[in-house]
Amino acid sequence: MSKNILVLPGDGIGQEIVTGAVKVLACLRDDFGLDIEMDEALIGGAAYDAAGHPLPQATIDLAKEADAVLLGAVGGPKWEPLDISVRPEKGLLGIRKELGLFANLRPAILYPQLAGASTLKPEVVSGLDIMIVRELTGGIYFGQPRGIRELENGEKEGFNTLVYRESEVDRIVRVAMDIAMKRNKRLCSVDKANVLECTEMWRDVATKVGADYPEVALSHMYVDNAAMQLVRAPKQFDVMVTTNMFGDILSDCASMLTGSIGMLPSASLDEHGKGMYEPIHGSAPDISGKGVANPLATILSVAMMLRYSLNESAMADQVEKAVNSALDQGLRTPDIYSEGTEKVGTEAMGDAVVKAL
Amino acid sequence: MSKNILVLPGDGIGQEIVTGAVKVLACLRDDFGLDIEMDEALIGGAAYDAAGHPLPQATIDLAKEADAVLLGAVGGPKWEPLDISVRPEKGLLGIRKELGLFANLRPAILYPQLAGASTLKPEVVSGLDIMIVRELTGGIYFGQPRGIRELENGEKEGFNTLVYRESEVDRIVRVAMDIAMKRNKRLCSVDKANVLECTEMWRDVATKVGADYPEVALSHMYVDNAAMQLVRAPKQFDVMVTTNMFGDILSDCASMLTGSIGMLPSASLDEHGKGMYEPIHGSAPDISGKGVANPLATILSVAMMLRYSLNESAMADQVEKAVNSALDQGLRTPDIYSEGTEKVGTEAMGDAVVKAL
Ligand SMILES: CC(C)[C@H](C(=O)O)[C@@H](O)C(=O)O
Ligand SMILES: CC(C)[C@H](C(=O)O)[C@@H](O)C(=O)O
Repeated sequence: MSKNILVLPGDGIGQEIVTGAVKVLACLRDDFGLDIEMDEALIGGAAYDAAGHPLPQATIDLAKEADAVLLGAVGGPKWEPLDISVRPEKGLLGIRKELGLFANLRPAILYPQLAGASTLKPEVVSGLDIMIVRELTGGIYFGQPRGIRELENGEKEGFNTLVYRESEVDRIVRVAMDIAMKRNKRLCSVDKANVLECTEMWRDVATKVGADYPEVALSHMYVDNAAMQLVRAPKQFDVMVTTNMFGDILSDCASMLTGSIGMLPSASLDEHGKGMYEPIHGSAPDISGKGVANPLATILSVAMMLRYSLNESAMADQVEKAVNSALDQGLRTPDIYSEGTEKVGTEAMGDAVVKAL
Repeated sequence: MSKNILVLPGDGIGQEIVTGAVKVLACLRDDFGLDIEMDEALIGGAAYDAAGHPLPQATIDLAKEADAVLLGAVGGPKWEPLDISVRPEKGLLGIRKELGLFANLRPAILYPQLAGASTLKPEVVSGLDIMIVRELTGGIYFGQPRGIRELENGEKEGFNTLVYRESEVDRIVRVAMDIAMKRNKRLCSVDKANVLECTEMWRDVATKVGADYPEVALSHMYVDNAAMQLVRAPKQFDVMVTTNMFGDILSDCASMLTGSIGMLPSASLDEHGKGMYEPIHGSAPDISGKGVANPLATILSVAMMLRYSLNESAMADQVEKAVNSALDQGLRTPDIYSEGTEKVGTEAMGDAVVKAL
């Protein structure tokens, strides 16, 4: 039976970068027998503009039926005056929650072809390969109560709730442990257990889960120290696991260390292997519509989709090889351009990958 | 009338690094007419061990009477099995709150003598000079309710509350604006206004305060992007202002960019200029007792004390000059050592500064 893939281009450069990835999927379908059907739907600001809500019910329904979702990016200054409850970001948070995508895998890998693009010294980052596992459907992003209330003296007070229950921590740490088992068997759990009770509980659960994985060296680190250590000596890390909010911050920091944030994909998985795949970078409103965005992170997200949701790891390897081949040919979008390479646009880069397939 | 300074060595390397700073103060008193009295008290794990609580009432009383407080560092693995409510960190949080030290100033400066110590490429960090203003007595560190409760199904749930009222945001943004006015007149307020209502309110207040400072270019940035931008192009920042938790993470990241975290002081101020001064680095249990810790961040904290609480900016300049002179002589503690310089211990470094005075 053919697998159903829902494509959600979203906002900003979303449409542009998704186009190349869809071409890759179409090529795999037409020339390599990948049995898929593709559908497209609205999310984010595009959905708000067309339907009055960043996550229309039709999109939720299609996403629930799909075997995997490919997302471009959401958000942009155009929608920033809006109330938080109807912002493009709400569409993204909503679909993560609706689909139960609690495990967000964010690799931070340095591409040897792009080694020079990092702002860090080569010896500090060469060979960097970290996997950050971010909890994605809990924590302060979703905790209740939340809002803005008026106090007796007339001033406003804003509040949000950081909350995790043991089972939520347990399952995300297990995902991270399973990944660590297939890598270098080192897992660093990041918290602020010296100040926040919620993450004190997190640390306790992580320690308990650790007992089930005696082969994995589990360590714990405070989030402020983790931010420092990522800059000081990032290669000390293999797999990291942390809360939704800390994962947001640390994974962006880690991916920027590589200098190739335009290259980095991500996967958000539920308990059964269904997933949503998207580049780590955002909607980049400043370059949107110019045809210069880097489509490789989205194409590499297709590779992750093949591996984690479609059970086609040979094809995943093929896509990753094709991306490397485009880089080896010296093709570069402006974000990864350096002297001596050839500057190309979004479309040419995507086409080069398809050709290399 | 002589000013009263309370010294709180704390834990780990705290005692060692404070010694040099106290010598500097004593030298200013004996040879340059600085009219001070110094007292010492317990805090953190040291206080817990001696008195059963990380912040004894006697320490609070002395701190309230003092004109300024000099703190070493608190915490260490020895006390990590303890309950969060009696950990060394609770002593630090408690004294910040008791003294109303809501404004934490954390400079991230690259010392030209130590340029090579940064893990970032020289062109990315040379001349780096950022001031991070962190809110220190509110936010999720202090929000109620907090704790760990048992759910109906028997599992535990940990929770903390992020909360700010308008007046708290207003006053910290004004502190940051005043600092920006004396610098390059650029202020970046960091939040997660696209997801957290509390920081949506933060952004609104920052914008309102901005209207009172038309000369300052105010910008807003999401915290994940700020973590990226600090790595990508840190020199874009002049002054940053943010919440307690975000400030904890971003200031540690920023200070590590300089490669000289052993050099960076901080000030925590109340509404009237009273302050607590401490190095940005922690209690470094791994090197504690070895006499190799870098005392310069603590000595530079004395300079900040002279400037912000004792109204002795000429002396502050003198202390900073003396530190530079020790560096210019090629003296280096192990954390900032590089080939061609002279490795010295904590005491020799402190004495060199005193001599240079
Ligand atoms: C757009 C925003 C809601 C989102 C997040 O904070 O989760 C983004 O920053 C990300 O990391 O995917
Ligand atoms: C020790 C800890 C409570 C403290 C904090 O998180 O505020 C420290 O990390 C700091 O930044 O001063």
